[in-house]
This record gives sequence, C-alpha cells and structure tokens, in this order.
Amino acid sequence: MINGQSRVFAAVLSPVVDGGKYSIRRVVGQWVHVDARIICDGHDVIQAALQFKPAGSRTWQEHRIWGKAEDLWGGSFRVEAQGLWDYRVCGWVDHGLTWREGLSKKANDGQFVKTELQDGLHVLKAILDMKKQSEEVVDFLTRLIDLIGDENQYQEALQMALSNDLQHILYTCPEKKFISYSETYQVYVDRPRALFSAWYEFFPRSASREPGKHGTFKDCEQLLPRIKEFGFDVLYFPPIHPIGEVNRKGKNNSTVAAEGDVGSPWGIGSRNGGHDAIHPELGTLADYKALIQKAREMDIEIAMDFALQCAPDHPWVKEHPAWFKWRSDGTVQYAENPPKKYQDILPLYFETEDWRALWTAIRQVVLYWIEQGVTIFRVDNPHTKPFAFWEWLIAEVKKQHPDVLFLSEAFTRSALMYHLGKIGFTQSYTYFSWKNSKYELIDYMNELTKGSTGEVFRPNFWPNTPDINTFPMQNGNQTLYMIRIFLAATLSSSYGLYGPAYELLVHEALPGREEYYRSEKYEIYHWDWEARNALTMLITMLNKIRNAHPAFHETNNWENVNVQNDHLIAYYKQNADGSDKVLCVVNLNPYERQSASLQAPLHRIGVYPGQQFTVHDLISGNSWIWNQEWNYVALDPGLPFHLFHIRQ
Amino acid sequence: MINGQSRVFAAVLSPVVDGGKYSIRRVVGQWVHVDARIICDGHDVIQAALQFKPAGSRTWQEHRIWGKAEDLWGGSFRVEAQGLWDYRVCGWVDHGLTWREGLSKKANDGQFVKTELQDGLHVLKAILDMKKQSEEVVDFLTRLIDLIGDENQYQEALQMALSNDLQHILYTCPEKKFISYSETYQVYVDRPRALFSAWYEFFPRSASREPGKHGTFKDCEQLLPRIKEFGFDVLYFPPIHPIGEVNRKGKNNSTVAAEGDVGSPWGIGSRNGGHDAIHPELGTLADYKALIQKAREMDIEIAMDFALQCAPDHPWVKEHPAWFKWRSDGTVQYAENPPKKYQDILPLYFETEDWRALWTAIRQVVLYWIEQGVTIFRVDNPHTKPFAFWEWLIAEVKKQHPDVLFLSEAFTRSALMYHLGKIGFTQSYTYFSWKNSKYELIDYMNELTKGSTGEVFRPNFWPNTPDINTFPMQNGNQTLYMIRIFLAATLSSSYGLYGPAYELLVHEALPGREEYYRSEKYEIYHWDWEARNALTMLITMLNKIRNAHPAFHETNNWENVNVQNDHLIAYYKQNADGSDKVLCVVNLNPYERQSASLQAPLHRIGVYPGQQFTVHDLISGNSWIWNQEWNYVALDPGLPFHLFHIRQ
Repeated sequence: MINGQSRVFAAVLSPVVDGGKYSIRRVVGQWVHVDARIICDGHDVIQAALQFKPAGSRTWQEHRIWGKAEDLWGGSFRVEAQGLWDYRVCGWVDHGLTWREGLSKKANDGQFVKTELQDGLHVLKAILDMKKQSEEVVDFLTRLIDLIGDENQYQEALQMALSNDLQHILYTCPEKKFISYSETYQVYVDRPRALFSAWYEFFPRSASREPGKHGTFKDCEQLLPRIKEFGFDVLYFPPIHPIGEVNRKGKNNSTVAAEGDVGSPWGIGSRNGGHDAIHPELGTLADYKALIQKAREMDIEIAMDFALQCAPDHPWVKEHPAWFKWRSDGTVQYAENPPKKYQDILPLYFETEDWRALWTAIRQVVLYWIEQGVTIFRVDNPHTKPFAFWEWLIAEVKKQHPDVLFLSEAFTRSALMYHLGKIGFTQSYTYFSWKNSKYELIDYMNELTKGSTGEVFRPNFWPNTPDINTFPMQNGNQTLYMIRIFLAATLSSSYGLYGPAYELLVHEALPGREEYYRSEKYEIYHWDWEARNALTMLITMLNKIRNAHPAFHETNNWENVNVQNDHLIAYYKQNADGSDKVLCVVNLNPYERQSASLQAPLHRIGVYPGQQFTVHDLISGNSWIWNQEWNYVALDPGLPFHLFHIRQ
Repeated sequence: MINGQSRVFAAVLSPVVDGGKYSIRRVVGQWVHVDARIICDGHDVIQAALQFKPAGSRTWQEHRIWGKAEDLWGGSFRVEAQGLWDYRVCGWVDHGLTWREGLSKKANDGQFVKTELQDGLHVLKAILDMKKQSEEVVDFLTRLIDLIGDENQYQEALQMALSNDLQHILYTCPEKKFISYSETYQVYVDRPRALFSAWYEFFPRSASREPGKHGTFKDCEQLLPRIKEFGFDVLYFPPIHPIGEVNRKGKNNSTVAAEGDVGSPWGIGSRNGGHDAIHPELGTLADYKALIQKAREMDIEIAMDFALQCAPDHPWVKEHPAWFKWRSDGTVQYAENPPKKYQDILPLYFETEDWRALWTAIRQVVLYWIEQGVTIFRVDNPHTKPFAFWEWLIAEVKKQHPDVLFLSEAFTRSALMYHLGKIGFTQSYTYFSWKNSKYELIDYMNELTKGSTGEVFRPNFWPNTPDINTFPMQNGNQTLYMIRIFLAATLSSSYGLYGPAYELLVHEALPGREEYYRSEKYEIYHWDWEARNALTMLITMLNKIRNAHPAFHETNNWENVNVQNDHLIAYYKQNADGSDKVLCVVNLNPYERQSASLQAPLHRIGVYPGQQFTVHDLISGNSWIWNQEWNYVALDPGLPFHLFHIRQ
C-alpha cells in the first residue's frame, strides 16, 4: 500500500538492462555509476540517496547522490564482495532544507521572519531527537532552538539559522520523512579474473618434447614454467575426454580416418567414457588433478573445454537414447547444416521429453569437474543449445561455486552473443579477429563498451584460435602478428591466443578457407617448446605491463583518441581512481612508416593546455615531454606501436 | 516452471515504456507497431506471432509477425475498443518448415532423401490432426502422407513435399510446439477525442451581450452556435465555483480588491461553497447541466477547470483543518514561492496524516461533476500536487468512467510533464507557445513525437491562454496570429485557444511580462460576440479541414519536410492506411514574402520520381501539378501558408 504522504518519485534510469530483467555485471572492487530520476511536485527542496547491499543482506548501505543536470541525479557505489547485489535510489522532500531556503530568501528580501523561524522548530527538534547525533550537532541545535524561543534574540536566532553550519547539519542529518523508493535492480559481482585474464591455448597431446609421441598431462606440467614466463593466467586445453572412434575424422578434417589418426578432441565419447572421463593417452584423473594443482601454485588456472556433443560411440547414446533424436530409419540423428552432414557428431536432443534428466546429467558433469579442481569452462558453441538451459545451468553452478567462470564460444549474430551474456556467461569470444581497419576497430569497441552491451557482455579478444586463421594473418608478416597481439592485449582486458601456432607464425591455410592447413585439431603436432623470438618477448612484455597497470584491468574504460591518419589508431584508458593512465598508438599498416598529429585527451589526463606531462613508452623505454594538445607521433613497422604510460 | 523444451527466446523491444511499468497510449482504431526480438539456438526455422487482447479477456487474438532485420521481428495490431489492452509476442521452432527447408537443400544438392521424407511424417500427421483444418489441407496432407509411405512413389512424394502448396500449409497451419512467450505489456485505449480535439476557452462571466453585466450559463448557451460555427468540439471555462471573498485579487492582479471587483475564478471557495458548488452569479446547477446538455447536442463537450486550491474562506478550511498546513502563529499556510507570497490562495496539505480522507474527498468532487455531465477536466497546475495522488485519482475515475479525459496544465520541466503523461493524464499543455523559429519547432516536434515520449504524452498546442500573451504575439500583426493558429491546428491533433482575445487580436500586455494588460482573470470583459474577421474565417476553415482529413487526427505521424529557407517550415502527415495525405508549408516571417525549393517526400507519397501528382491547397483552393522531387514554393504575408491535400 502506498503512503500518500510520499511526494517524491524516484526511478533508476541506468544501468538498467531490459527493464531490470537481467542483472548488470561487475567484478569485486568495481564501481556502479547510477543515473536516476528524482522529481517532486512543487518547489520544495528534495534530497536523494543511492542504496545498495548484498542481495542476501537486510541492511542497505547508502551514499547521498546529487543533481547532475535538470531532474537527473547521479551517484556511485563500489561492489566489495562476490555475488548478487541489490541497488535502488530513494528520495524525500527535505523539510529542513526547504524551510531554511524559504527563510533565507525572505530574509534577503528584507521580510520580518519571526514566525518563519518558529515554523522551523518542529524540524529542528526532529533532527535533535534522531539517534547518534554528535555532541556538536546537539549543542548547535539546542542553542538555536533556545534562541528562536527567546523573543529578544531574533537577530541572533536568524543569524544562526542562516549560517553555513546549520545548512551543513540539515544536509548531513536529514529527517527523511515520507521517503520514496525506486524499483530494486541487481548487479552480479564476479571475482576479478572474470574481467581481467590472459589465456593461452595449446593441445595437450602435442605437449611431448619427443616428436611423434602423444603428449600427456605430465608433459603439460613441464610446460607450465613457459606459460608462467610468458605471463598468462589461464591455460585452456581443447577437450580432454575420450575421442570417438566411430566416424572419427582424419587429417585435414577428412571424413575418413586413416590407421593411427588421432581424431578431433571435439568428437567426444567412446568405449573409454564420455564427458566425465579422460582420454587415456593423456593420462589419469590423478595426473589431471596434479596438473591443475601445479598450475594453481603458479597462479595459472586450467580452463576446461565444455563441448556438449557426442561421438556416435559416446556411452550416453546407449544409456540414454531419449537424449538423442532418432530418425525414421532407426538411426540416430547426426549434426547437420543442410545440405552439409557431420556424421562424427551427434547433437543432444534438447527437445526431448526427458529434458529434466538431461539437464541434471549435464549439471552433474560440470559439478564433477569443479570437484576435480576446474574453475573455468570454455563453452563450445553455446548458441546451438537452448538459452533457457544455459541460464539455468550457470545459475545452478554459481549458486554453489561463485568462483566458476564461463567463456562463451558463440560466433554467431550479435543479438545471440549479447543474450548469452545477459543470461550468465562470464566472458565471450568476439569478432575482434576480423576487425582490421581503424574504423572497424573503433566501431566495434564502441559497440562493445558504450551503451548497455558493456553492462552484460565481457569480450575476450583472440587474434587466432585453432579454428581461426584469418586471411590477413595467412599473408601477414611478423609485424602484423605483433600488431594483432598488441591490439588484443591492450583493447580488451581479457584476451587469448592459440599460442604455439601464433608465436611461431604458423599461417599456412586450406586454400580459400580461414582454417589452418593440417590443422592441429586432427593430428598431433611437435612444437619447439624452447623457442623464444620477437613475438614471445612482446607477449611477455605485454602481460607484465597489463599486470602492473590497472588501466588495463577493464575494457569499458576504452576511449578513442583522435589521430589524423587512417593507418593509425589511438586509445586512452585510465583506472577508476585515475591513478593509472595509458595511451596506446598503433600503426595498423605492417609495411610502412606512418606519422600524424595526435590530439591528447588533456581533460581526461587532467592537465590544462600548455601544462607539461610525460609520455613514457613502456615497450621501447623512451619518453617524450608533451605540453600541447596536438603532438606528433611516428611509428615504423619495426616497433609499430607506443604504449605510453602518462606521468605528470 | 519453465518448459525446458522451449528453445525460443521472445521479447518485446518496443513500444515499452520504463520496462513496462507504464502503459502506452492509443485511441480506438489506432495501430500499435511492435518490434520484437525472437531468437533461438541453432539453425532451425523459427516463427513468431504478436498476441493482443482486452486486459479483461482470456482469449488472445493473434497476428503472425515477420523478420524485419537480423533478429528483429515486427508486426502490428489495431486497438478496437476503449480500455486497457495486453500485448506480447511469442515464438516457436517450426518443425514443419525446418524439415522442409532441410529436405529442399539436400534434394537440391542431389542427395537421396527417402529417410528425410519419412522423418517428416510425424509433423505432417500432427498438422493433419489439428482442429479446423480446411478440407483442401486435409486432402493435401493425406495424399502426401500416403505418397511418402509408398516406396514406389518417391519422386511424386518429393515433388509434393517441395511444392509451394506444402510451404503455404506449413506456414499457415503451424504445429506450435514448445511455444515461448515474452512478458506482457499494456496499452491504454481512449476514445478518439483524447487525441483529436479543438478547444475553445472563454470566461462565462464575460458571456453577457449587455456591457457591465455578469455573464451566466444561460448567456453561454446563446454562444454555442458561434462555437459550433467555428468548429470547436471542446468548450473550456475557467473555474465556475464560488470565488473567495477574503484576500480577493483586484484588477490587474492587485492584492487589494476594490469594491465590486469580481476576483479570480481560480480563488475557489467562499461562504457560497467550495469545489462542488457553482458561483451564484453564473446561475444554478440546473443551468450548468442544461448548458452541458445543449452543448452535447451540438457535439461540443464542456471541460471543467479542476484547480485544487482554496481561497481562505473555502468551507474546507473550517471543516477539515487537517487538510491545510498550520503555521506556528496559528494561521493557515498560504501559497508561497519565497520570497513571493500568494495570500489569496491556500494550497492543500498533501503531507497531512489525514491524506486518505483528503484524497477521497477530491475523488468525490470529480465523481460528482461527472454525474452532472462533465466529461473532460482541465487540471490546473497538476505538478504542484503529488504524482502518486494523480496516478490514483485518474485510475479510480477511469475505472468507472473510461470516457473521462484529463488535460494537464503543467508548465514545468519536461521530465515532470512527461511523467504526468505516464501516470495517466490524457493530454497536456506544452511549450508550443514559445517555439517560434523553424528549428525550435522542428526540435520540439521531434522531441514530442519520436522516441518513447509520444507513446505516453499527447500534446495540446495553444497559441495563447489567459495566462500566456507571448512577446511575439504582443507585437504581432494579423499575419502572425494567422501563422500561430495554423501551426497549432496542423502540427498537433489537439489544439486550443483563448478565443475572444485571439480572434480580436487583443495583445496589450503588462510591461515586460507575458501577461495580458487588465487580464480577464480579474475582471469582466465585454466582447463583441458577433464579430467575424479574417481570423474567425481561418479558424472555421481549419477546423473543417481538420475534421475532414484523418491525417490531422493524430500527432505522431508528423514528419519534417526539407524546404531550403530558414523562414519556411514544411511538414507531411498521412493517416495509418495512407488514404489521406497532407503537406503543410508555412512562412514563419509575417512581414515578407519567402520562397524556396521544397523536397517532396516522394517515397511517403508513394510516387516514383517523374510521376505526376497534384497538390491542392485546401485554404486557397489553388492546385499545382508536381512531377519532380524538388518544387518551388512562395508564400506572401497575405496568406502565409499552404495546406496541400495530395491527390494522385
């Protein structure tokens, strides 16, 4: 039931996603900036506050907010713990401030305001009676009330009533009568790695130092120091489950496997087990757990590939025929994108009458791996399974294990990708791999970071994956590889790469396709795991800089910077408190020197025109002193970027 | 509980106001155009529908909708009765169309699809089993099912399965399995006059033909034929209640009334009664009811001024002291905007503990006047009373009397004006009166009609009111008066004027103020009610044209038209079915001839470049044949506008 005495209308304008149907996302320590409408009938002074609390708590914390523009109020709060938080705004007619403002206007107009002074007694007394007032406030109000009550002290009372001290007391100790509240909205808070992560992908079966030998988890352990040296904090393996033997794929994605072909790890399930088993040649569960543990000691998390599809010999096909679609000829439905057929893969049949058992079994698989130590899932093609299923699964998992993160590998239309973010995915692959020109990059960064998309969708930028060998990369020189990894690591706070192929500039492709020739998806590679080169040095440096500079720990702080050359892109980032400020300039042309004037964002840096500041290149070690808004920059293909730390 | 088999996600994108918290507005017969997101995992063919129903009904009506752009679906429905309507969208995986699409792609690829044909039997049978299939559909499906079942009829079965006839059946008779629904949103539907109305205001006390005599309702009856002749359909009087005698205002808003001064009608209440009484000099309740009845016979509605404030001698002050604020000196609080004091007016104290009784009493007043025949309330200063109160009051009244309309007289900040629209006001006064230049007018029309404002806020354009005598009007010639009334009547489907002063070009003002000198608010005028002149002729013509042309029956259909002269403004309107198309061109300069090229909106008119069409000026009676996109227009101060009806 409404209280008719509440005259203020309070509403949160932003951040609100789909009318509040979905929570926004933050990580621990981030801020939520709230815009609100606070309006009231008439001319009275109104005041407002932003309230917030962990969803389970009964007690709201509160910050006062202020009018930013006509009828637009704003304020911020910091989320300091994982989990779901509530936020709302509230407003009230401030009777104390209203009274003092009227008094002041009339007194300035020369009116005799004895009655007006006395009209204020009830609000002054109400504030005096509030709990926890300081001694100073009590003394001040007691004396003012006495003065107003004494006919002979009119001037003294008026002076005290019009003092800044009283204004301060009225503002800081309001009598919040007839308070109005907005709807409550929610923010889901993850641990920091949800937003800031550097991923490295390799195939464990290629981890052996001995050519031709199937790699094992034990071999992977030997590679951990290398991953650590490069500075990555998430190590992601393609599926580690038993690989199907029926309709197994051969080399180069051939539909017929030759004797000894190892198949695609995404063809999951065989007589050796399904999604809860380990491919025998990789080692045992104990080996996997030991690897997870060793990695954890180096602050590296192992991400598991979660690919919800089955090889024809997956145990579920016999144990749960209802989880698959059966054709009129009595065979099970394989994956199709007509007229194409993928006979090595059986999709799960989510329209089954037995969907409850299917969902429960999948949850069980996830929980099982979490028990073994997995904390991150890279979900293969989530956009080919129902949204409602993911929304349920992720909520179920997060309820018990809020630390667990989910990366969506949905290369599909943007509406679906962003919807997967809304319903719970922590991060997502993106179309960064195909954004090459300056204006494509700027448009995409704006799309991802400005507006409501950035509230629910955290991008993860990959220059390559085992599935993505873009045309420019196929033809690229080392400079292009430097540029692409630099962009990924500095535009987005989460990025990753399919490492060995990238470092070693592997780029041979199937003709006319953006796929690797002799893709590692279908055979064992032997990599030179000792190799060090310009790219590994750059990657190591970028990860060090990223770790040291909080400006790189988020993505939505990206701001385009004006630089007058279509081959050059520049962008600025700073952390929330402004203590770390970086400016990146990249020559997107890997063959030619490019130069231009760059307009330094002086108002963001916090200097006035003419004031001197230093741009220190964290890659080259060079510094320049700038004291103008417009500055000359020139970049050669040898080192095609600046990563400036701004110092004053 | 969700059904996990439902794979589609369906959401309404627009129109949605504040996440669905407020209903959008329409009048009977208008369309609601809905944009929706309909997405699904995977590659299956999905289908969707827009559903709608009166809120009280259990049965949804339905229109199929279609993909307008990537993942954006759209459709429309027409609201055919007053009251609250529900709307939502729904979507489903169409198993029939999915099956046929796969079959077609494989057959085109040359594959042998016998099994695929048989895979379709279950969906064909399901559709056959649905109720109410036509005989043709039953015959077709029965034959196809037979053919598929006959091994020797493979080619015939395939041909029939790939026929357009089957595609048509599958589309029109879908098996809607595992359907998903969006949230439900609401549209409030008013009677047409809520959107299309022409208002005329005069003071009934000035209605007498005898100079110096207080006008009466009976005198007003004599004026009805004049209002009817001019073509207005709402006649609005300032308050007709007893005028306070204590602190009564004198002429020219003087704080001291002279002997015989009649006071302001907005100073409501005296020993003769309050808001439910009639000022004795105007006549009796019976006279008022007779006037309402006479007016109704001419299709004119009488709008009542609803001004929730009291003169110091209003009966409520003694009967309900708790409804007023009392000062520490024992006096009742008068209206203030410090340092200004309005001692003739006591505001109601909405923060009173007795608010329930106050709200109930006000509702009683409104219901009382509705019983006497009032159907429209023009609410004085609603922004100085609580929003929650209006939301409740209007909902309470509409529940019993959906025909009753409320015009908001809130000249305040736009956020408050639009909020009053959201919470229930039918129409609102606007800032049209102060929009004079071409670009001010275009910006304001865009603000009002594009985006979500137009969904909840219906403007009513007034060139003048007893309170508004703008600086340009004070100095304006007859041409300016013609321009302003033309703009009001053609830009907005609802408009009004403070008539006698307007027609007779009264424009003397208090120096430096936008108020009339010797305002009729404080004294009785004697008007020449027989006068006819260029303005009355124009008004009569405009109202005739407005009534005859449905393009003028709504406001949101306004579209700016490019005309290359800053003194000329042009705009286009057409009704929903495109059967009525008008193009207005106005010379905003009342002193000089202006000419320019005008870019006819050919794509809206529905002609191709080079195709001939006629623009027929409904004011001058002249016609031009245009066959180009760019056309020459020239307007003189003598007749400073074209009102073109477009004919093909």
